[in-house]
Amino acid sequence: MAYIDLQNELPGIRGLMAFNPKTAKPLNELAETLLRDLDNSLSRGERELIGAYVSHLNDCLFCQNVHGALAGHYLSCNLANMDELLKGAEMSLLSKKMKTLLPIAAAVQISGKKVEQDHINNAREAGATDMEIHDTVLIAAAFSMFNRYVDGLNTWAPDDRQYYINRAPARAEEGYIDFNLYK
Amino acid sequence: MAYIDLQNELPGIRGLMAFNPKTAKPLNELAETLLRDLDNSLSRGERELIGAYVSHLNDCLFCQNVHGALAGHYLSCNLANMDELLKGAEMSLLSKKMKTLLPIAAAVQISGKKVEQDHINNAREAGATDMEIHDTVLIAAAFSMFNRYVDGLNTWAPDDRQYYINRAPARAEEGYIDFNLYK
Repeated sequence: MAYIDLQNELPGIRGLMAFNPKTAKPLNELAETLLRDLDNSLSRGERELIGAYVSHLNDCLFCQNVHGALAGHYLSCNLANMDELLKGAEMSLLSKKMKTLLPIAAAVQISGKKVEQDHINNAREAGATDMEIHDTVLIAAAFSMFNRYVDGLNTWAPDDRQYYINRAPARAEEGYIDFNLYK
Repeated sequence: MAYIDLQNELPGIRGLMAFNPKTAKPLNELAETLLRDLDNSLSRGERELIGAYVSHLNDCLFCQNVHGALAGHYLSCNLANMDELLKGAEMSLLSKKMKTLLPIAAAVQISGKKVEQDHINNAREAGATDMEIHDTVLIAAAFSMFNRYVDGLNTWAPDDRQYYINRAPARAEEGYIDFNLYK
């Protein structure tokens, strides 16, 4: 049960956003821009995967399932593969570039100071642009926020993975801005 | 030097925001709402202090100086006291309530999962409301993002503390939305 009275029964960040729509607005706009803007050379699936991966490293049940299911939806991964992917075991599914961006995200998950020149060199050698490196760092940083917000206030989350998978197509259709988070 | 070519010489997050105004917009709106909205029972100085404290724990030179100087400006602390405050040594300056909110922020800095029921109970006993606990967690989470964004891309920051102190009154006047970050 959440540490504060959210006055709603919504899970994860949805309950927090309904509790405080004022802060929900820029948080949703950030997610929409970072994860869904179509003027971006990383696919929506790749960006969701970076968020899911950081959420997995932070052991945030709600976020890793929401964004893991969205990544699976976009990337057409089956579930077993997505689980393995999040554990870093099935890297063969990923592009060479993504294999160099996920370690940057993993460094950011620990601390911004853990990103080293070698991480950047590896990403550049795999063809990553400045904007792709920027977006990887900011997505990993943003999920460092979202995960702490969700778990720091002890929100509840459905245990059943299928709940998230069932919702993913509609979430992918609606996005973060138009999706009615407050109902 | 930043890991990517920002095409500007601005320090810290200002260089990143000029590089990508699309993501700067919701980031600034989040800061404005969280740290400056006047419909809030935590003062602007208290909220800036929470951000500066988390940035100090993350050893983020730019953020701890920008927001430490703003907190000092609002709270009329002298510099030595602000330094000590950020090190947790001068807790006598703080209200009883702030003394219970800063440990919540320090827990969030490590992980959302580090916030425990006792933290919340202590804050409630000191008079903290649900919204104040919410805002403390979200400010600490947001600075977990800002710090990682600034340091993960290896931005530069002025070493001279006075640079930040000199700028604080104008920053306090202009806020995060109207302040022209792109010049």
